[in-house]
Amino acid sequence: METLGWIAFGSIIAAGLCMGIGAIGPAIGEGMALSRALSSIAQQPDETNTIVKFLFVGMAMVESTAIYCFVLAMILLFANPFWSYFLEKAGG
Amino acid sequence: METLGWIAFGSIIAAGLCMGIGAIGPAIGEGMALSRALSSIAQQPDETNTIVKFLFVGMAMVESTAIYCFVLAMILLFANPFWSYFLEKAGG
Amino acid sequence: METLGWIAFGSIIAAGLCMGIGAIGPAIGEGMALSRALSSIAQQPDETNTIVKFLFVGMAMVESTAIYCFVLAMILLFANPFWSYFLEKAGG
Amino acid sequence: METLGWIAFGSIIAAGLCMGIGAIGPAIGEGMALSRALSSIAQQPDETNTIVKFLFVGMAMVESTAIYCFVLAMILLFANPFWSYFLEKAGG
Amino acid sequence: METLGWIAFGSIIAAGLCMGIGAIGPAIGEGMALSRALSSIAQQPDETNTIVKFLFVGMAMVESTAIYCFVLAMILLFANPFWSYFLEKAGG
Amino acid sequence: METLGWIAFGSIIAAGLCMGIGAIGPAIGEGMALSRALSSIAQQPDETNTIVKFLFVGMAMVESTAIYCFVLAMILLFANPFWSYFLEKAGG
Amino acid sequence: METLGWIAFGSIIAAGLCMGIGAIGPAIGEGMALSRALSSIAQQPDETNTIVKFLFVGMAMVESTAIYCFVLAMILLFANPFWSYFLEKAGG
Amino acid sequence: METLGWIAFGSIIAAGLCMGIGAIGPAIGEGMALSRALSSIAQQPDETNTIVKFLFVGMAMVESTAIYCFVLAMILLFANPFWSYFLEKAGG
Amino acid sequence: METLGWIAFGSIIAAGLCMGIGAIGPAIGEGMALSRALSSIAQQPDETNTIVKFLFVGMAMVESTAIYCFVLAMILLFANPFWSYFLEKAGG
Amino acid sequence: METLGWIAFGSIIAAGLCMGIGAIGPAIGEGMALSRALSSIAQQPDETNTIVKFLFVGMAMVESTAIYCFVLAMILLFANPFWSYFLEKAGG
Amino acid sequence: METLGWIAFGSIIAAGLCMGIGAIGPAIGEGMALSRALSSIAQQPDETNTIVKFLFVGMAMVESTAIYCFVLAMILLFANPFWSYFLEKAGG
Amino acid sequence: METLGWIAFGSIIAAGLCMGIGAIGPAIGEGMALSRALSSIAQQPDETNTIVKFLFVGMAMVESTAIYCFVLAMILLFANPFWSYFLEKAGG
Amino acid sequence: METLGWIAFGSIIAAGLCMGIGAIGPAIGEGMALSRALSSIAQQPDETNTIVKFLFVGMAMVESTAIYCFVLAMILLFANPFWSYFLEKAGG
Amino acid sequence: METLGWIAFGSIIAAGLCMGIGAIGPAIGEGMALSRALSSIAQQPDETNTIVKFLFVGMAMVESTAIYCFVLAMILLFANPFWSYFLEKAGG
Repeated sequence: METLGWIAFGSIIAAGLCMGIGAIGPAIGEGMALSRALSSIAQQPDETNTIVKFLFVGMAMVESTAIYCFVLAMILLFANPFWSYFLEKAGG
Repeated sequence: METLGWIAFGSIIAAGLCMGIGAIGPAIGEGMALSRALSSIAQQPDETNTIVKFLFVGMAMVESTAIYCFVLAMILLFANPFWSYFLEKAGG
Repeated sequence: METLGWIAFGSIIAAGLCMGIGAIGPAIGEGMALSRALSSIAQQPDETNTIVKFLFVGMAMVESTAIYCFVLAMILLFANPFWSYFLEKAGG
Repeated sequence: METLGWIAFGSIIAAGLCMGIGAIGPAIGEGMALSRALSSIAQQPDETNTIVKFLFVGMAMVESTAIYCFVLAMILLFANPFWSYFLEKAGG
Repeated sequence: METLGWIAFGSIIAAGLCMGIGAIGPAIGEGMALSRALSSIAQQPDETNTIVKFLFVGMAMVESTAIYCFVLAMILLFANPFWSYFLEKAGG
Repeated sequence: METLGWIAFGSIIAAGLCMGIGAIGPAIGEGMALSRALSSIAQQPDETNTIVKFLFVGMAMVESTAIYCFVLAMILLFANPFWSYFLEKAGG
Repeated sequence: METLGWIAFGSIIAAGLCMGIGAIGPAIGEGMALSRALSSIAQQPDETNTIVKFLFVGMAMVESTAIYCFVLAMILLFANPFWSYFLEKAGG
Repeated sequence: METLGWIAFGSIIAAGLCMGIGAIGPAIGEGMALSRALSSIAQQPDETNTIVKFLFVGMAMVESTAIYCFVLAMILLFANPFWSYFLEKAGG
Repeated sequence: METLGWIAFGSIIAAGLCMGIGAIGPAIGEGMALSRALSSIAQQPDETNTIVKFLFVGMAMVESTAIYCFVLAMILLFANPFWSYFLEKAGG
Repeated sequence: METLGWIAFGSIIAAGLCMGIGAIGPAIGEGMALSRALSSIAQQPDETNTIVKFLFVGMAMVESTAIYCFVLAMILLFANPFWSYFLEKAGG
Repeated sequence: METLGWIAFGSIIAAGLCMGIGAIGPAIGEGMALSRALSSIAQQPDETNTIVKFLFVGMAMVESTAIYCFVLAMILLFANPFWSYFLEKAGG
Repeated sequence: METLGWIAFGSIIAAGLCMGIGAIGPAIGEGMALSRALSSIAQQPDETNTIVKFLFVGMAMVESTAIYCFVLAMILLFANPFWSYFLEKAGG
Repeated sequence: METLGWIAFGSIIAAGLCMGIGAIGPAIGEGMALSRALSSIAQQPDETNTIVKFLFVGMAMVESTAIYCFVLAMILLFANPFWSYFLEKAGG
Repeated sequence: METLGWIAFGSIIAAGLCMGIGAIGPAIGEGMALSRALSSIAQQPDETNTIVKFLFVGMAMVESTAIYCFVLAMILLFANPFWSYFLEKAGG
């Protein structure tokens, strides 16, 4: 397998593992926040608006770590600088 | 095995592991949120609508990390840029 | 072993691991939700209908991550795009 | 070992691991639900029927993830599309 | 070692791991249910019959995941379709 | 090493791991049930007979998963169908 | 190394791992039961005889999983059917 | 594969693992902080502004560890000093 | 390295791992029992004799799993049947 | 691949793992401190200034372990003494 | 490397791992017992003598599992029967 | 790759792993201490000075284990005695 | 590499792992005992002398498992019987 | 790579792992002790001197396990007896 193939192979494996492992943390973190928010709403219904507003802002922040992983996986697949270089070299 | 075969082999393994590992977190996170929501409903039946509304919005957000994994697995299988390239080269 | 064989071998292993690992999270998540729901019913029998309705909607959502894994395993076994390509090439 | 043998070997290993790992989650999830249900019955004997009805519906749902694994293992052993192909090719 | 030997070797290893790993979950799940049931009987002796009836129905359901593993191990050892095929081929 | 030797080698390793790993779950599960049963007896001495009766029935059920492992290990060592076949072939 | 040597080597490793891993579960399970029994005796000294009787019967049951491992290790070392066969063959 | 290829391959794998593993901690840490903040708001609505202000400052600090990982992954992909050197040498 | 050397090498490794891993469980189990016993004595000084008597009988039982491991390690080192056989063969 | 390439390859992998693993601890540690600080503010609003001051000083200290990892990764990439030596030798 | 060297190499590795892994359990077990004993003394100063007496007898028992490991490591290093045999053979 | 290269390669990997793994413990330990200190300040504002003084002295002590790791990593990179020796030999 | 080199190499690795792994348990065990002792002193200042006396005696006992590891590492490095033998043979 | 190189390579890896793994336990143990000490000071300010005195004596003892690791790493790097021997031999 030539170099171009190894770069593609490595990018596919790295993207898959990065997204797979990186989805564990955010999902559990958001689940904890969400579960606590819902029981807080039940205890303090008057504060629903405040709690929900900051819940979603906060979850967006937690989600950001998952998005970093997704962005990195997308970069590895669609905007991989190493792939571009070797592609250009192979095509030259 | 030629390069095309390795790309396919790698994509299959990466898609399988990404989805398999990536399903652990969201499922546990949603389970925590759901279980707390149900006991909140039992304690505060009047708030059922509010709790349920935000529960499903929040679970959709947690689910999003699983969906990232699923999307990535689908991209690896059906819209793999590396596969497209090597396919084109092999067919050229 | 020719390329066709490796694609089949990889798909089988990936499908098995994806489903096996992916069944851990949803089952535990649903178990947590179910156990909390049942004790909520015992504490608040009047809310049984509400709790049960949202329990099953929520469990269906948790189940969805297991279904993603199952769908992916089925795709790998029965609608594998890489297999189709190599099959066609081998048959051509 | 020819390709046919590797497909068989891979299917056996994948079926064993898929079922073995996939039995951990559902069993623990059902155990949690069952244990909470029984203590709820003890606290609220009047609700026994309701609790038990939803316990078994819910456990069936949790069990479904174990069944996915079992179904996949059965497919790998008895309805393996890759095996069928190679068998036909070997027999042709 | 010829193909027939590898199929036998793989089946033995897969059966052993499947049963060994698959016994962890059900045993812990049943232990949790049993321990909670016994303390419920102690708290509510009048409900002993109800609790015990559903305990054993539920434990049978949890046990089912261990039985899936055992069945699969038995299939791999005594009704292995791949073994049958290669045996027939070798004997033919 | 001929095929017969590999079958024996694999059976020994699989039997050892199956029993070793498979003993973790039942022992912990039974320990949980036993410990809760004893504290229940202390709290409700009048129910000793009921608790003990169902404790041992239940522990037998938990023990069954350990026994599955032991049975499988025994089958692998003393009634291994693959060994029988190769033995017969070697002796024929 | 001839086949006889591999059988011996495998039996030694399998016996060691089986006993080593298999000792974790029973010891922790018995420790849990024992610790709870002692605090029950302290709370309910009048029930000492009952608690102790069932503690030791129960611990014997938990111990049984460790004994399965020990028995298997002994079988592998002193009554190994595969060793007997190869020994006989080598001596014949 | 020449040196340039190995540098690219290593950078891709290292970037993927660094981001994947590095997303677990911050997401869980932020989830803990967020969940506690929301329940604090519910208990002390008057302090909402103070809590939220420091929540987001603190989460930004936790997020910084995820950002270190992202920055490192970006450096490895787009500003890799080793790649630059070998590229220059190869192009020279 | 001849067969005799491999048997010795395997016995040494197996004995070391068996004892090392097998010491984790009993030590933690006995620690749990001991810690609970001491706090029970503090709460119920009058029962010191009873508690201590059964504590040491119980700890001896927990210790037995460690002793199984030690016995097995000693057998592997000093009464290894495989070693005896090969020694005799080598000396014959 | 010449020595220079291996040094670069090793530095990339080491930097990635160091930062990835090293981000888990600080993020969880800071998350714990932050979550407790916010609930303390809610309980004792008058102490907000004191709590926040020491929270950020303390988090900076926890952050320092993540910064050690980042610094080390940067040294490995941009100020690697081994790379400098081999670069000089290669260029000499 | 001749057989004598491998025996020595294996003994060193086995002794190191046996002691290293075997020190985890006893230390944690004794730590649990000690911490509970000290808080019992604080609660019941009059029982100090009884508690301390049985604490040290019990800790000696827990320590015994660490001592088994140490003894085994010493045997492997200084009284290794396999080493003695090969030494004698080499010296003969 | 000559010896000098391997020494450099090993030092880089060892420094990266040492710092990466060694940052987990101190960060979590400091996080626990900090979180408890802040809630103590909230409960006992009058003791703020005492608590904070000993908090930072104690955290410095916990930090010391991270610093040992950092120092070791720095020694491996910048004051490595083995590198010095081989460098001198290579340059001699 | 001659035998003498392998013995040295193995001793270094075994000493490092033995001490590294063996330091986890005692440090956590002593931390638990120390933390409980300090809170006991706070609750029962009059018993400070008794608690502290037995705390340090007990911690010395826990420390002993770490010392076993250290002693073993020292023996492996400075009083290694296998090294002495091979050294003598090499020097003879 | 000659023997001298392997000894250096092994010492570097062993020192790095020993310090890295060995820093986890002490840091967490000290963190537990410190956090409990601070909350004890808050509850019992009058005992500050006593608590702090024994806290630092105790933490020094916990720290000792980290110091053992550091000492061992230093010995491996700067006073390695095996290195001295081979160095002398190489220089002789």
